[in-house]
Amino acid sequence: MTTALRTDRYELTMIEAALASGRADRRCRFEVFTRRLPAGRRFGVVAGTGRLMDALADFRFDAATVEWLAREGVVNTATLDRLHDSAFSGSIEGYAEGELFFPNSPVLSVTGTFAEAVALETLALSTLNHDSAIASAAARMVAAADGSPLSEMGSRRTHEEAAIAAARAAHIAGFAATSNLAAGERWGVPTMGTAAHAFTLLHDSEEEAFRAQVAALGPGTTLLVDTYDVERGVETAVRVAGTELGAVRLDSGDLPQLVRQVREQLDSLGAVNTRITVTNDLDEYTIAALRGAPVDAFGVGTALVTGSGAPTAGFVYKLVAVEDAEAGGWRPVAKASAGKVSRGAAKRGRRLIGADGVARAELVIVDETRDGVPDAPVDRDDLREAGASIRDLTISYATDGDLDARYRGHDGVRHARAHHAAAIAELPAEGLRLGAGEPALPTVYQ
Amino acid sequence: MTTALRTDRYELTMIEAALASGRADRRCRFEVFTRRLPAGRRFGVVAGTGRLMDALADFRFDAATVEWLAREGVVNTATLDRLHDSAFSGSIEGYAEGELFFPNSPVLSVTGTFAEAVALETLALSTLNHDSAIASAAARMVAAADGSPLSEMGSRRTHEEAAIAAARAAHIAGFAATSNLAAGERWGVPTMGTAAHAFTLLHDSEEEAFRAQVAALGPGTTLLVDTYDVERGVETAVRVAGTELGAVRLDSGDLPQLVRQVREQLDSLGAVNTRITVTNDLDEYTIAALRGAPVDAFGVGTALVTGSGAPTAGFVYKLVAVEDAEAGGWRPVAKASAGKVSRGAAKRGRRLIGADGVARAELVIVDETRDGVPDAPVDRDDLREAGASIRDLTISYATDGDLDARYRGHDGVRHARAHHAAAIAELPAEGLRLGAGEPALPTVYQ
Repeated sequence: MTTALRTDRYELTMIEAALASGRADRRCRFEVFTRRLPAGRRFGVVAGTGRLMDALADFRFDAATVEWLAREGVVNTATLDRLHDSAFSGSIEGYAEGELFFPNSPVLSVTGTFAEAVALETLALSTLNHDSAIASAAARMVAAADGSPLSEMGSRRTHEEAAIAAARAAHIAGFAATSNLAAGERWGVPTMGTAAHAFTLLHDSEEEAFRAQVAALGPGTTLLVDTYDVERGVETAVRVAGTELGAVRLDSGDLPQLVRQVREQLDSLGAVNTRITVTNDLDEYTIAALRGAPVDAFGVGTALVTGSGAPTAGFVYKLVAVEDAEAGGWRPVAKASAGKVSRGAAKRGRRLIGADGVARAELVIVDETRDGVPDAPVDRDDLREAGASIRDLTISYATDGDLDARYRGHDGVRHARAHHAAAIAELPAEGLRLGAGEPALPTVYQ
Repeated sequence: MTTALRTDRYELTMIEAALASGRADRRCRFEVFTRRLPAGRRFGVVAGTGRLMDALADFRFDAATVEWLAREGVVNTATLDRLHDSAFSGSIEGYAEGELFFPNSPVLSVTGTFAEAVALETLALSTLNHDSAIASAAARMVAAADGSPLSEMGSRRTHEEAAIAAARAAHIAGFAATSNLAAGERWGVPTMGTAAHAFTLLHDSEEEAFRAQVAALGPGTTLLVDTYDVERGVETAVRVAGTELGAVRLDSGDLPQLVRQVREQLDSLGAVNTRITVTNDLDEYTIAALRGAPVDAFGVGTALVTGSGAPTAGFVYKLVAVEDAEAGGWRPVAKASAGKVSRGAAKRGRRLIGADGVARAELVIVDETRDGVPDAPVDRDDLREAGASIRDLTISYATDGDLDARYRGHDGVRHARAHHAAAIAELPAEGLRLGAGEPALPTVYQ
């Protein structure tokens, strides 16, 4: 199925008008960045790039699409002729999926004709804004869980396709597993889950339900013990499954206190290896509040899939440079009126890493070279530090229309998850604090 | 493409365990409702039902799906045999799409075997939670705009498929149009859009850009006048397009003051019929703040597609009754432990309408009849009012596996939009206030 109509109408009317003015083939560079992080957030996590590559591979104005656009009168015949079966011939570079970002990090750039580059605005932003918002929230939850495994269980609280992308983004940011089967099938994310309250209510008693579940799934399963009374539920669970019961799950109640009571009860019943999983409307703050409690695993739903208060990453897609054939090079461009001011010119990202392995700054390399791409950083004395190193953040995703397949599919997810783990290990410790604060790294233009 | 894997893994493990315990074919009734509205909200709008019917028609465990589940070891062979190509044979009823809802309104119910009904939990909740969150926010924006047309322009700020559903939900709740072309193609929502800042920056001057756009799209187009300097932009726009210029768009700045200045300037230039469209990070509050200003149309993005602070509707899918073959009827069931308490038994909704045509109460009819479906309200004296009437809110979507096609496709959207307009016209005036408050109608069990 083509993804070509996942596009705002004005992208196509702009192409129509640019064809008429002779500017449609002018080479342009668009960049994706955010002017600021959500209030109080210290870093963001890039996600969605692999999905975007898949969508780009399927971005084609096929005959049926062109026919619909003609019937609706969206653009004229000349524009439809131009769009029909045209393929992207430009280049894309940007941050690796899983990488951290800060205000004005040049997360993605698209260089090509105006017509082909502007057409990708909506698709690129939809994908990156959604997935990065989820990954950014997920990374904070992972930090709050302090090593305990997290599962994503929010499919029911977001759009059914967004749910699959959310499970993928959370896994990249460190979640161990998801409840969503499609995320397992499509992206290779491990899936988990055993039973809901409905299963207990289906049976004529909690004991009948537990016996049924243990008979089918074995004593290593997780029994949900809060349908009626938690203390009786735990007692019944251990009586039915034995002391080798895998886990009990708590989905309601005052968790810090309840978890301690359940741990004591399990231990007193001899179920000392039985784990406790909690899933009661958790977010990064309630996870952190359970740090001292004997919780073995967390399941997170609503807060994760809605970005924990920041459901979109705030990325914009801005024209930053146009080719100037007469002057023989590129010219930076930017909106100049009140508010929403952008910085023109092509940019690339580098991270300054101290001798101790901890990141010091987000360097945005701006160089208005003839080919529109910055190629050399200008060193700044105030950033010099013995033993410091530079990590290039900008990689190539497509060159002259050839998409790099490495970042797609299951492999892309594995790669992104590993990349994220390495990038977050470089973050200064205060960057992982949940309290509101400034970005963990300053963005420095060079 | 099948939608069967848009399902949480535990739905399938519950089916496996229920097959083993002999309870998988027990007839069950699940209901979708929310315990509360988002903080301060006075009503919600049901949306997504038509999309859910489409997804149900494609919900099938086909050979490829079963093979993947087997390979992953999600459930055993007996369960896979049961799922393979099984078709939903149950019944679905619920509120019409576009209808208003309140705490505990029985928005949707699914009656069938445990196995077939529990399998739909995730898909039903994903669809209804997302679309209803967007429609609920959209309805507040429509009220705030006080008759001025609104366009949905938020595709870039949400998942690319969620964007299409959001455009559909907003249209049902009264938005006139969307920027999203796929929403036009798939759901018949009118599409709109002309140009972005990139189009101006592509050209060597604002005047060159405006001339190109007017040449291609005619003087009736909308010119974006805030790329450099608004006053000069408006002057150039009218000089280029003439006084028949369709509209100018403002996407930044201090809107209430700016809009008045632009209106005066347009009038002084003779462009008295040129409309003003504003699109600067609007939500229901900033729209309301522009009520006195000469704004002709609003474009809303981020706030709409993220539910304006409430990105999910809070619907849950709960088992409320099970068939009790021995007792020869149905038995209400409900979770009983601390927090998240539900009310068992089958329910239907009715709205009490006063003689003046204004709604008075949300009636939830609870009747534990032998077939699991309430059939007669119990009148309450305190709700008696001369000339009052009752409107049934619960309609049939599927009977014994037959899905009613009337609520699907473009027709379904048109029907839902009309239904919403009629339902909102019944709401007490204070229900449309933006300030935080109690639900506009009390929910009364009968």
